[in-house]
This record gives sequence, C-alpha cells and structure tokens, in this order.
Amino acid sequence: MRIEQWARERDVAVVWRPFLLGPIFADQGWRTSPFNVYPAKGRYMWRDLERICEGQGLPFARPDPFPQHSLLAARVATALDGDARSQFCYAVFAAEFGRGQSIDSEEFVSGILREMGAPAETLARAGSPEVKAALRDSVTEAGALSIFGAPSFTTADGELFWGFDRLAAALDWARARA
Amino acid sequence: MRIEQWARERDVAVVWRPFLLGPIFADQGWRTSPFNVYPAKGRYMWRDLERICEGQGLPFARPDPFPQHSLLAARVATALDGDARSQFCYAVFAAEFGRGQSIDSEEFVSGILREMGAPAETLARAGSPEVKAALRDSVTEAGALSIFGAPSFTTADGELFWGFDRLAAALDWARARA
Repeated sequence: MRIEQWARERDVAVVWRPFLLGPIFADQGWRTSPFNVYPAKGRYMWRDLERICEGQGLPFARPDPFPQHSLLAARVATALDGDARSQFCYAVFAAEFGRGQSIDSEEFVSGILREMGAPAETLARAGSPEVKAALRDSVTEAGALSIFGAPSFTTADGELFWGFDRLAAALDWARARA
Repeated sequence: MRIEQWARERDVAVVWRPFLLGPIFADQGWRTSPFNVYPAKGRYMWRDLERICEGQGLPFARPDPFPQHSLLAARVATALDGDARSQFCYAVFAAEFGRGQSIDSEEFVSGILREMGAPAETLARAGSPEVKAALRDSVTEAGALSIFGAPSFTTADGELFWGFDRLAAALDWARARA
C-alpha cells in the first residue's frame, strides 16, 4: 500500500509482476503458507503485521482462511498492465488484508474491475490461454530470480529485497543506481 | 552491535538473555539453521545481512561453517552478568560475523575473557551444573515466550520483536510504555 507513493517520491519506476506463491512454497516443501507451517513464527508475523499497519495508519484484518485462493486475482492482474494493474492489486490487498474479505470469487473480482472502469472483457481475457501462460512464465521467472516470498522487489541491477520492511531500502537502492 | 547505544539514546534498560537456537529449531523440525534448510532464502538472508552491515558501517564476514557451535559461548555469557555479559556477547558476535572466526574453542573464549579482564574462574564456572541448568532454563523460557529465532527482543509488557530490523521498534515500544 506504500510502493507507488514512495517510488514517486524517489522518482523510481515500478513494474508490478503478479506471480503465485503456491508453487514456490511447494519447492520449499510447504503445502501452505509458512505462517501456518510454523505456528510460533506465524503468530509473530501476524502480530508484526498488525503493529506495522497501525504504525502506517492502515486498517488491518486477518483474512480467514489464510492463505486465500489468489489464482483468479493473479490472472486478472496479469491481464491488466500499467496503472490498471497496480490499481487492481491495491484494491485486492485492501480487501484481503484491510477488511479480511475473501478474494477468490468472480463476483469479488468483477466488482473491483467495475469500480475501476476496466474494459468489460478483462475477466474473460484473464481466463485465456495467453494470460494463463504468461502467469505461469512469471512464476518460473520468480523462481529463477531466487524469489521465495512476497512482496519481493528486484532492481534493474539484480538486487533482491523481500518484505515491506525492505521496500524503502529497495527503492533507495534503485534510486542511487539510476 | 547497536542495541546498547540505541537503548541508551532512548533511556531503555536492556537485559541480555543468552539461549540456544538448536533446541528451538529442533522444535520446528529443523536440524540446522533455516538459512541452510532453505537455500534460496538462506542466500537472500546472507546478502541482506551484508547490505545491512554495509549500511551500518559494520564489518561483515560470513562464518564457515554456519551455524557455529555456540554452547560454550552461551554458557560463558550465562555465567557473566550486567555489562560483562553484554561486552562478552559483543565480542563473540564481532568475531563470528565481523571477522568470520570460529567461536567454539576454549582458547577463543578464554582470549575474550582475558581481554575483558573477567575473573579467572569464569570459564570453570561456565561449566558448573548451576550455569548449565540456568542456560537450559533460559531455552525453556524462550520457547514459552514463543521465541523462534535470534535476536529476539521482549518488552516488559510482553511484546515480542524479532530481528535487527525490529530493534528500533522494540526500543521505541519499550520507551513509549515506560
């Protein structure tokens, strides 16, 4: 919820790249989020997130169940680009983590697209073979970049930063090397 | 390497509590550090640490092998208290992560104690049943506090913060509620 503003402040260009964590977690031997695999760490991570949101003045509601099924949302994000993609992602994250809503239904996704004024065919295009393949390619690329979690930020010169708590450092890095 | 200075700046009292990560990792099903269990994440964590140390103006050298055997050092830290304990911990961390040295030998530990001017009987006391039991109790207490990694910081009102990147937040939290 901060990347667009913080990137503008530093004059850094951001390209959003939707991908799926499921296959990446599976490569680590996890069948669900590590928040669930490791309960002590998971409890801490939720509390940490709650404190961070409070510090940022952002609403927080823990989604239940977690993780949510994000395949449809990831395909729709892949079908969009530029500002429409980031706007869609902001809306999905605000719903899931700000209001604790489910994000997996066509109804939910359609509602966001309608509010955004996105083209009517977006949802259909999200189910096309091209978009499905593009998302699969993004997952493969994420793995090749050694990405193991989200959010992850990669810079043009190949540095990887992971987590909201590294967002400012990632943007500063990109700015310093621009 | 920053806690004493940052705590002083905020007028927050710090009590160092040595414990062992081995038994805590074992509870998660890990037989070594998660840096080793999950290679992609491990590579990232080392690079992250390198960048952080550079930003802090601290030397960094990756210890090999990692993790080091820390039982002796943890017992000696337990045998000390107050400023002597924190001074000893700083010296061990500087050797392991600043110069990539091994920390497991009596020779290494004795050298630090000598430089500190610690009482000659400290090393013998570190091997006493009382100190061994005190360290075991600390590990049990760490588990009861839901600690799953190090460094971890607990506040008087029971908040848990994990990692150098939460040190300032932990101290700010303690300060605000003092």
